[in-house]
Amino acid sequence: MTASPPLSDRPHDKRPPAPAPTLPVSTPPQVPVGRIPVQDVRPVIDHGLRPAKAVVDETFTLDATVLREGHDAVNATVVLTAPDGQQTLIPMECINPGLNHWVAEVTASYPGNWTYRVEGWSDPYGTWEHDASIKVAAGVDVELMLTEGALLLERAAEQPGRSGDGRLLLDDAASVLADTDRSVTTRLSAGLDRAVREEMSRLPLRDMVSPSPDYPLLVERERALYGAWYEFFPRSEGCYYDTNTEAWVSGTLVTAAKRLPAIAAMGFDVIYLTPIHPIGRAARKGPNNTLGAGPHDPGSPYAIGSPDGGHDAIHPELGTFDDLDEFVAEAERNGLEVAIDIALQASPDHPWVSSHPEFFTRRADGTIAYAENPPKKYQDIYPLNFDNDPSGAYAEVRRVIQVWIDHGIKIFRVDNPHTKPVQFWQWLIQDVAKEHPDVIWLAEAFTKPAMMHLLAKVGFQQSYTYYAWRNGAGELRDYCTELAGESAAYMRPSFWPTTHDILTPYMQFGGLAAWKLRAALAATLVPTYGIYAGYELMEHVARPGAEEQIDNEKYQFKDRRWADYEPGGPKEGQSLAGYLTTINAIRKAHPALRWLRNLRFHHVDDENMLCFSKARRLPDGSEDIIIVVANLDPHSTRSSMVRLDMPVLGMDWPDSFEAHDLITGETWTWWEHNYVRLGPEWEPVHIVAVRRP
Amino acid sequence: MTASPPLSDRPHDKRPPAPAPTLPVSTPPQVPVGRIPVQDVRPVIDHGLRPAKAVVDETFTLDATVLREGHDAVNATVVLTAPDGQQTLIPMECINPGLNHWVAEVTASYPGNWTYRVEGWSDPYGTWEHDASIKVAAGVDVELMLTEGALLLERAAEQPGRSGDGRLLLDDAASVLADTDRSVTTRLSAGLDRAVREEMSRLPLRDMVSPSPDYPLLVERERALYGAWYEFFPRSEGCYYDTNTEAWVSGTLVTAAKRLPAIAAMGFDVIYLTPIHPIGRAARKGPNNTLGAGPHDPGSPYAIGSPDGGHDAIHPELGTFDDLDEFVAEAERNGLEVAIDIALQASPDHPWVSSHPEFFTRRADGTIAYAENPPKKYQDIYPLNFDNDPSGAYAEVRRVIQVWIDHGIKIFRVDNPHTKPVQFWQWLIQDVAKEHPDVIWLAEAFTKPAMMHLLAKVGFQQSYTYYAWRNGAGELRDYCTELAGESAAYMRPSFWPTTHDILTPYMQFGGLAAWKLRAALAATLVPTYGIYAGYELMEHVARPGAEEQIDNEKYQFKDRRWADYEPGGPKEGQSLAGYLTTINAIRKAHPALRWLRNLRFHHVDDENMLCFSKARRLPDGSEDIIIVVANLDPHSTRSSMVRLDMPVLGMDWPDSFEAHDLITGETWTWWEHNYVRLGPEWEPVHIVAVRRP
Repeated sequence: MTASPPLSDRPHDKRPPAPAPTLPVSTPPQVPVGRIPVQDVRPVIDHGLRPAKAVVDETFTLDATVLREGHDAVNATVVLTAPDGQQTLIPMECINPGLNHWVAEVTASYPGNWTYRVEGWSDPYGTWEHDASIKVAAGVDVELMLTEGALLLERAAEQPGRSGDGRLLLDDAASVLADTDRSVTTRLSAGLDRAVREEMSRLPLRDMVSPSPDYPLLVERERALYGAWYEFFPRSEGCYYDTNTEAWVSGTLVTAAKRLPAIAAMGFDVIYLTPIHPIGRAARKGPNNTLGAGPHDPGSPYAIGSPDGGHDAIHPELGTFDDLDEFVAEAERNGLEVAIDIALQASPDHPWVSSHPEFFTRRADGTIAYAENPPKKYQDIYPLNFDNDPSGAYAEVRRVIQVWIDHGIKIFRVDNPHTKPVQFWQWLIQDVAKEHPDVIWLAEAFTKPAMMHLLAKVGFQQSYTYYAWRNGAGELRDYCTELAGESAAYMRPSFWPTTHDILTPYMQFGGLAAWKLRAALAATLVPTYGIYAGYELMEHVARPGAEEQIDNEKYQFKDRRWADYEPGGPKEGQSLAGYLTTINAIRKAHPALRWLRNLRFHHVDDENMLCFSKARRLPDGSEDIIIVVANLDPHSTRSSMVRLDMPVLGMDWPDSFEAHDLITGETWTWWEHNYVRLGPEWEPVHIVAVRRP
Repeated sequence: MTASPPLSDRPHDKRPPAPAPTLPVSTPPQVPVGRIPVQDVRPVIDHGLRPAKAVVDETFTLDATVLREGHDAVNATVVLTAPDGQQTLIPMECINPGLNHWVAEVTASYPGNWTYRVEGWSDPYGTWEHDASIKVAAGVDVELMLTEGALLLERAAEQPGRSGDGRLLLDDAASVLADTDRSVTTRLSAGLDRAVREEMSRLPLRDMVSPSPDYPLLVERERALYGAWYEFFPRSEGCYYDTNTEAWVSGTLVTAAKRLPAIAAMGFDVIYLTPIHPIGRAARKGPNNTLGAGPHDPGSPYAIGSPDGGHDAIHPELGTFDDLDEFVAEAERNGLEVAIDIALQASPDHPWVSSHPEFFTRRADGTIAYAENPPKKYQDIYPLNFDNDPSGAYAEVRRVIQVWIDHGIKIFRVDNPHTKPVQFWQWLIQDVAKEHPDVIWLAEAFTKPAMMHLLAKVGFQQSYTYYAWRNGAGELRDYCTELAGESAAYMRPSFWPTTHDILTPYMQFGGLAAWKLRAALAATLVPTYGIYAGYELMEHVARPGAEEQIDNEKYQFKDRRWADYEPGGPKEGQSLAGYLTTINAIRKAHPALRWLRNLRFHHVDDENMLCFSKARRLPDGSEDIIIVVANLDPHSTRSSMVRLDMPVLGMDWPDSFEAHDLITGETWTWWEHNYVRLGPEWEPVHIVAVRRP
């Protein structure tokens, strides 16, 4: 294939051109296959134009179809090339000979731009092993087969890279194979000896080595895949109603920082702040998204920009850059990373409106275009236009991002990226990564699958998902199977049971069981999940007619009076903080939960229940295995049989094991078939650690 | 991705290298996406390294995912580039907005190396059409929307390529849109007028045109996809037993040519000859694959080569090159193309054994390796070795092929291509195509799917299939759906109910119904099918323990006494020739049956029955539609309801039509639900032409 410029416009025409006078004589556009063909290497993203992704120490399966003519043995190797050029050979295994399907487990140990390729090769020892075993037993070509074996092992002994011991071993075996004074059985056995096989597998004779192209693999830090997020509006943390002035006093970065230890104590990894920039006055929204805000209404932090500054400024009511630096430092002291919101849109009061009018769309009447969803208009928001002056707009956003990076921000949650050109994000994320490869971008694109996938392919490390609207067992199983499947090579899901924009009927009406369940599922189905402040308090009342919180923090302050839920407070015991702390502790203690691609579902008889497991081999050789069973019906306790796919758990069908429920501390003996009872009456979810003697 | 040389051997090592000291700083390997991203263009074979295929005038669907940010209208065009560089723009249609799935029907009109690409673009008229309709109706921005519409149409009127009439039309509409003296309704209608839309669709305003890469499309002559083949052993045609000498006298190319008019009269397109080369004497096989042939046993034509010559020679008993030329000429006079068998293996008597010993594998004891399937050995066959001297071996085979091309052979049926290196075939087929792009290669690779697919990808125009072993309705439906699906872009199946190597139990024991059924299905499910001589006579007796003919022609002469079945002959009426003639006539009369990708299945209540249809739009605008209903149980007559998917037939659910059975001449009125009764009692298959008023 070749790149081609766009065709200059001419009429659409379905009629093909008239036949050419003679048959064209040109070389067909075939790229030669290798001597040992390698086909269908996976993952390969967009024909290799974009990298597959993994995080450091994340093991994933590399698949290929490797085949050859005739009956001789074929074999395959993955060549993993690190950013510094160092190469690692990983043997592949044929897991389905009928489909010529080969796999290898691949793990990269540090971040950067890696590549991998598959090499198919002819395996003369494998051919000999197969033929000699059969023919010698059948008395066919006996002396010939033994001689050929001896010659093969002599050749292998001389191979560059062979250790002294290896050479000795193979030379010995070769001499026994060639020794006509010994019995045929002894001679053959010398060639098929376990140690010989192992040595030949360690450093095989690889003939006709045929490489696939090298495909790109972008390896990122673990936080790109794994983390527990906590979202809050900083102005709410420490805000209070001043009865003297009869007005709310905003929380600040200083007061918000005081909340960080509690969030860290629950076990979260990332604190995500909604936009902290100055808020416009023009057409400001009042409480519950009403038009005509009062003088004390703080406005939506998504209506960015005022005379106090734009995307590179901090709202004066929240504090200063020094306050931000101290907030970031306090977060760090608590083991938290700070994520901020990037919402690339402007209030009509934004400085860009005058300094960069070309960043906006001008209508035929000279006015600037508001955000619209025809016939609706959003008069508090001007969308940005990236096409009038792409390089100018790109550079300005890049400058803005650097402001925050320079203040220690390494995670950006991007609001509605699907309303800006994809090529803009691709450029921005790549450009930032040149100097800051540890920066992580989360796409808040609740939109069609193609756009979500493409944003991930061009660089977003993480993506919000449809999780909030997947409540049934079947749909969760299907959706998570999809997310943990081929797309996991480039798209990493983040699961949020609620956000400041989302409060589904399930959460409005599901009660305690729903709030526990949806957090536990989010935290175990995928490695990255998040909750929005107030989740602890099960804030479940929606604005009538909307599926979001009533008295939403987007438009007003919210003092949650956290102290009331502390020991001795009037609402002690009425918070889910303890449950969330348990969930996060389980995530930290069990590395299996840090991965996505290891998700496997098991059968449950009751269609309202879900069972899945994750397993991960640890450096010490042990296996960390977690099994989750959940009753998705928040309104009734259900009992059912769960049928575990034992081989998926690394066990044989008749095996049993100790199932330790990490939520309740109970322990049972489980095997393939297990009785479970779950629901609002007790706990909606088992999170079970597998313990084996 | 980049091509890379194979890594020099070093130990397999699963341990990744030690962490690098610092984070690498390099540009991630991202290729920029277009401003309007185009994703997942299909068909694209092996990431564009190998061409998709079509034959002349074969229409196929090109798919792509085309998307953009925000709400503005997106559109897409296929640019089809002919071998001479001429480009055709084909508008795409979005058939699934939720998945951003766009399609276009593509047809190439002459053979050669074409390319296609998809261009995504911003569609300002589409955006305006959508927004203006909604906003003007809602009274929002009315004057602004009308003004913007006028400006847009003025711009469109000036577009290069716009016809005079088109320009006039758009300018008129623009002036009405801009005319504030007229009513809003009149002004808007002018911009949304049907003629304006059509003109804008004929030559659209395409902004931000963003091309995909150009992907290769190899267009071949129609015979590559469509044809009815007839196989015979030329030595059997005209052979006779000489009672004086008590020996068989071989048929010749001259006597075999006498059979051609009868084969042509049955409607076949290709006459395929098993190998016509000199046959080796060494270890020659006797009747029924026995060892130790007698002096008069003719030997297997697959044991090629004797002192009389090798692959570039004709068996003296069959005749001379002049006889071959006359055979080819007679075939041509009868409208038949000649295909010959290429079996690249040698009898120990082959001239290559002495002239080109490097074409064979020499064992450690100095002997040449026989063909083997350990522990079995085939001592009448030496396989070729293409690795000792690849360029020599490739060139010699190329020379041999040219000998036959020079005698008018344009179709090669390749015996067991999967036992030779794939890259050899790729080179050979490409090299031949440089000067002879009309040469067609059929792969006889009854092997694993990956090899069959790869042989097709590297150049074989056609492939034998698993058809002979797919007898149930479910498995036929699954298999044919697969063959007519994505792989149809590069692999073209050939269906054979029997061959000289294949006589399944279904055919041994199915009786007349089976022999009619399997020919009719082969001839209608896919465009290329073939039968082996004797099919007309329902030769169904297998050699005990084998699934092939007893007294197989591979090892002996077979005089079928065709005259006995002619009118007045002792066996008149005992042949299927008439049925086959009908089937082939139906194929010729109905262009829908010349395509593969138009195959669609319909529901039948009885699980032993199968229903499918094929439709094709003809140049005159009419639609050729064939519906086939078959009872796959050869032993009982069955009746069932068939439920036709009416939209697939281009009709609405309540429509009815005249169903004309092309086998029996009967006509019924059919609609969605139809009663059918089929089986040995009457006919096993309906082949129905749809007739509509």
